[in-house]
Amino acid sequence: MEKINIIMLICVLAIALITIGYVFLIYHKIQRLKIVNKNVEDNAKFIRSGAITFLKREFKIIIPFVLIVACVFVALGFIPGFEKAEGVGWQSAICFIVGAAFSAGAGLVGMLSATNANSRTADAANNSGLGRALHVAFSGGAVLGLCVVGFGLLGLTGLFFGAYELIYLTNGNNQIDAVLEASHIITGYGLGCSMVALFGRVGGGIYTKCADVGADIVGKIEADIDEDDARNPATIADNVGDNVGDIAGMSSDLCESYVGSIVSAITLATVFLQQYRLDVDIRLVVFPLALAGVGILASIISVLIIRMREWKDPQKTLDIATYIAVGLVIVASVFLSIFYLKNGSEFMSVEGKAAPWAIGAVAAGLLCGIAVGKIAEIYTSSDYKTVKNIAKESETGHATNIISGFASGMKSTAATVVALALGIIIAYFCFGIYGIGLAAVGMLSTAGITISVDGYGPISDNAGGLAQMSGLRPEVREITDHLDAVGNTTAAVGKGFCTGSATFTALALILSYGKVSGLIADGGVKMSVDITPFVIGILIGAMVPFLFSALVINSVGKAANKMVLEIRRQFKEEPGILEGKVKPDYNKCIDIATKASLREMIVPGVIAVVTPIVVGVLLGREGLAALLIAALASSVMLAIFMANAGGAWDNAKKYIEQIGKKGTEAHHAAVTGDTVGDPLKDTAGPTMDILIKMMSVIALIMAPVLGEFSVWSLIVH
Amino acid sequence: MEKINIIMLICVLAIALITIGYVFLIYHKIQRLKIVNKNVEDNAKFIRSGAITFLKREFKIIIPFVLIVACVFVALGFIPGFEKAEGVGWQSAICFIVGAAFSAGAGLVGMLSATNANSRTADAANNSGLGRALHVAFSGGAVLGLCVVGFGLLGLTGLFFGAYELIYLTNGNNQIDAVLEASHIITGYGLGCSMVALFGRVGGGIYTKCADVGADIVGKIEADIDEDDARNPATIADNVGDNVGDIAGMSSDLCESYVGSIVSAITLATVFLQQYRLDVDIRLVVFPLALAGVGILASIISVLIIRMREWKDPQKTLDIATYIAVGLVIVASVFLSIFYLKNGSEFMSVEGKAAPWAIGAVAAGLLCGIAVGKIAEIYTSSDYKTVKNIAKESETGHATNIISGFASGMKSTAATVVALALGIIIAYFCFGIYGIGLAAVGMLSTAGITISVDGYGPISDNAGGLAQMSGLRPEVREITDHLDAVGNTTAAVGKGFCTGSATFTALALILSYGKVSGLIADGGVKMSVDITPFVIGILIGAMVPFLFSALVINSVGKAANKMVLEIRRQFKEEPGILEGKVKPDYNKCIDIATKASLREMIVPGVIAVVTPIVVGVLLGREGLAALLIAALASSVMLAIFMANAGGAWDNAKKYIEQIGKKGTEAHHAAVTGDTVGDPLKDTAGPTMDILIKMMSVIALIMAPVLGEFSVWSLIVH
Repeated sequence: MEKINIIMLICVLAIALITIGYVFLIYHKIQRLKIVNKNVEDNAKFIRSGAITFLKREFKIIIPFVLIVACVFVALGFIPGFEKAEGVGWQSAICFIVGAAFSAGAGLVGMLSATNANSRTADAANNSGLGRALHVAFSGGAVLGLCVVGFGLLGLTGLFFGAYELIYLTNGNNQIDAVLEASHIITGYGLGCSMVALFGRVGGGIYTKCADVGADIVGKIEADIDEDDARNPATIADNVGDNVGDIAGMSSDLCESYVGSIVSAITLATVFLQQYRLDVDIRLVVFPLALAGVGILASIISVLIIRMREWKDPQKTLDIATYIAVGLVIVASVFLSIFYLKNGSEFMSVEGKAAPWAIGAVAAGLLCGIAVGKIAEIYTSSDYKTVKNIAKESETGHATNIISGFASGMKSTAATVVALALGIIIAYFCFGIYGIGLAAVGMLSTAGITISVDGYGPISDNAGGLAQMSGLRPEVREITDHLDAVGNTTAAVGKGFCTGSATFTALALILSYGKVSGLIADGGVKMSVDITPFVIGILIGAMVPFLFSALVINSVGKAANKMVLEIRRQFKEEPGILEGKVKPDYNKCIDIATKASLREMIVPGVIAVVTPIVVGVLLGREGLAALLIAALASSVMLAIFMANAGGAWDNAKKYIEQIGKKGTEAHHAAVTGDTVGDPLKDTAGPTMDILIKMMSVIALIMAPVLGEFSVWSLIVH
Repeated sequence: MEKINIIMLICVLAIALITIGYVFLIYHKIQRLKIVNKNVEDNAKFIRSGAITFLKREFKIIIPFVLIVACVFVALGFIPGFEKAEGVGWQSAICFIVGAAFSAGAGLVGMLSATNANSRTADAANNSGLGRALHVAFSGGAVLGLCVVGFGLLGLTGLFFGAYELIYLTNGNNQIDAVLEASHIITGYGLGCSMVALFGRVGGGIYTKCADVGADIVGKIEADIDEDDARNPATIADNVGDNVGDIAGMSSDLCESYVGSIVSAITLATVFLQQYRLDVDIRLVVFPLALAGVGILASIISVLIIRMREWKDPQKTLDIATYIAVGLVIVASVFLSIFYLKNGSEFMSVEGKAAPWAIGAVAAGLLCGIAVGKIAEIYTSSDYKTVKNIAKESETGHATNIISGFASGMKSTAATVVALALGIIIAYFCFGIYGIGLAAVGMLSTAGITISVDGYGPISDNAGGLAQMSGLRPEVREITDHLDAVGNTTAAVGKGFCTGSATFTALALILSYGKVSGLIADGGVKMSVDITPFVIGILIGAMVPFLFSALVINSVGKAANKMVLEIRRQFKEEPGILEGKVKPDYNKCIDIATKASLREMIVPGVIAVVTPIVVGVLLGREGLAALLIAALASSVMLAIFMANAGGAWDNAKKYIEQIGKKGTEAHHAAVTGDTVGDPLKDTAGPTMDILIKMMSVIALIMAPVLGEFSVWSLIVH
């Protein structure tokens, strides 16, 4: 590689290491804060130990799974025809294991930080007020956000660089081949992240929602006690759920999105490299890593600025943090593309596209992400008419509440798809299919700050729970509620970012698949397919996200039902619980949630892995391409629909409470909507993007092997 | 044409005419039955006049719309490049108007028959018992079923034959060109049917569900009075809704499906004709019409057999009717393909497929339809575990009822898609893409009997309503409930048939589009597409059914809300209504439903027409192909999901009532589920298949004009 590439990679590694160092600094700062209130400390310990128990047991299931898959990769490497497949062979297997470990590590550190920060946020709200509480909660979120991107980029860049040097030095290979091979190998890293994320999201999602739904049904509707009331046996499980689902699961998930976008951009760059074999084109391979590095730096600076003083307005603080980061990334990417993507004094040019257009693709991605987030806000915030309308429909009962939320979620797909389509068109116009990859990286380049803001939500939520459980003054709950309300909107926006980036990343992966499988001829943009297996693949692809969601939602339903029966049993057998005289058996509920979620996460995981393999073998590479394309479209629709319907139901309930109608029939109906929305928006919805990326990566691995082979062609021809 | 083709067409025309004659015979037989009970007669008059008023006002909106579109077709025929487009020109415009008129006529006659049969069924149940009531209800359904297929086939065959003769004689053309041109022209007939069906389904669907949901919410949940209680002001509107939605709307819809399948099979046959230009291949064009004729004959025979005596078991009667028809069609199609598809003593052979394989494709279609129907039954009948499970989940409240119904509807897509995929594979294997067209025709060849069975449901439902309203003995209601319960299962199975046939028909239309647009090269099966506009088209295509459903469901929600407020107002302002002393103001509710449904049907209708045009112009023929493929996949998933979730919710409620838990909390929760399911299964779900076929036909019309042009290619190249 040219020297400039080596320097760039070292810089990125340095940034990643600095980030991780800074993460541990904040982490310890939070940990050193003394918790004054004894009750808060005790309850927080309960939550923390419940969360750690869950993660331990989850890892026990994931580790063998990861090792088996790694062995399969190693074994496949010895089978003729498979050697050249993406992600196959012992090198990729190592990357796979490292990816899984780093993704799990990001989740673990994030969760440890969150379970430290929640109690300290409640304590700060109790002792020092809003500003201090906001500071602690934001710092906890920053640990999460920065450690996800730090770990993700460190592993990816380190492995890429290491693999390159190893191949280049030991095999005496030409540097272009070394880059190509290194790029192939790191596909395994992305897959490792995806695998952990899939299980983490599904398992954590089922956990958090079965506890939440169960606690709500008996607590709010039947026993008429508030959320997070210490008398409810599922309260601790509900709060543990926030940490294992909204923190650990989300961290692994976003780590996967982040890594996935970079890997797919790199893969698209290697397409040029393979075709033209110009040394200078290696910069296109390194560029996504550099962009990610710039993004992390922007995120750190933004965190530093926010943490310098205590703010009073949560919404403003989070908005400023995001805008600083986005602004910095755009400025930095202008410099990067002008000074780095150059060949001598000339701009690089690939397939008629000059390098400065890269800025356009990056900006298209960032703006598209913001647009999708804004649309999510319009459909889910109580400032706009959709939520108010659902609140109004609640007055005529449970059914009209459900119907109107359902319809508005479906309707929200329209504007979102238009925004995504425009983003794709602009990115493509700027830099061809590589532009689509860049747009995905651009959209997620500020992930450090997006995740910080996202993670702040559940921390505040937990703090509120602790305040309630520990009997702190009502004003404390008001402070944490204020923090939490802002968190709800940011969560919806964050999900929009996730869906948007997943669309771009999956599209980039599918394009890579098209190139690698030979469906899209070299240098071309045309894909030629046999129409009948293609259409069958489309039908199956559209179906898989429905089946996957159904299984996940069913799991929540089943587990929540068990939870409801357990809570009812405790209330019935020990009347002292509701009178507040006897402590309920929290552990029983934690145990139900843990067991159910771990058992239920396996079947969906297997479906995600097995479907592309089966379809690929039966219908061939064309059927598999169709599967991916249709699964992308179907999962994007379901993800948007579920996230926005769920968010709107949630906020319609909050809105009804705000206008002082708590306890009315309308409020009961709105609680039903909120409860229905929970598994949609927090369990099934967020898994959609992992599902489609997981299937795409597996297809990418199979691509070179499939060739012309398929059962279909054997029968028909 | 060869003599055998002429004879065949004349036979088909004769069958269609005999069918219509037989329809009027039964119609008058029913009408001659005297209604003994005065109350029943009065209430029936109310329903009948409400339904007629609605249809009149609906036609007033549809007629100008149809005329405008017809003018556009005539005008387009003068624009260079468009002359050769499917359905364009004055001949097609005439076909379009005739198609619209016949489709509307089928709906009108069906509805007139149903509003005659409902009161006489109630009366027969009152005076003579189950056997006689079943006989009357089945006869009413048979009028519906046979008149839909009779009208549909008469118009199609008549226009095809007439156009052929005209072109052949006046222009002195070669007979192959005359067949090709006649086949092109009748595309307009299919589009006319589609247009009326779209409005009829959407308008009727909104009408029936806003009345039903409104009546249920206030009646069952708030005032705790039974369904169809005469004290409920929306009762008459609810019963009118059954007639305008489940009868008139469904009739037009199935007429459209029926005609659409034949038109698409003919279009696929012309592809061979165009390529090889062999006179004998004209038989492939005529074959779908002959198959449809055979199917009608089988349906008539089946109706005759059933009507010969009075049966005692409704389920058995309907099953026997269906099996007789299916058996007859299979036997007849064996003869037809062996004796008709022959060239001298040799079987015809196209692209390596010998003619007897046609039987395989037809059978694949029929069996696939039955399989899809059976799967629907498994997911929606209370004999199976899904419904029982939803009933169990209702015990923990409204939310768990909704969640489990939602999830099982999504899950049901999996088995259905597998059945469809197998059907497509077998049909394709038997006779290439023409086989897919034949499978669609095969599946719908027994439509005469399927619709009879389908139509029997709402007639029995109405009879039950009349019995309740008119204060007949409780045993009468038991008889009609027994009839109605069977109707619920047959409705779910009928919807399965509809979705299945729509998948095949739409697929056949899309394949025709591929051929006509030049995306699929002559004689080939490969489609070559520019990947980026294709993927954008996929995203938009997947979104349209979501948007369309959202709009339709929203319309129901809005209208139902108005209905609820009106019913509440009447109850509040006139307490005498609930005491049974004062008659409520039925007309006010009828008026609300009529106005709302007519206003709300326009926007979805426009979306269905405009989307393919806009996408075609912006993204070109490749983007349009993607739009169709993705819209097919997305709408099939939503149709299955909505039909089965709705059916399961409905029957879970009935199941809870059967096991004697009416009035419990679980029952209230189940009523919520049923109410949520209503607009899904009876409004949005059934419109999905019209939406996709409508878009496909419009694409087919645009195909030859689009060529290489698109805004996309202007910008990118």
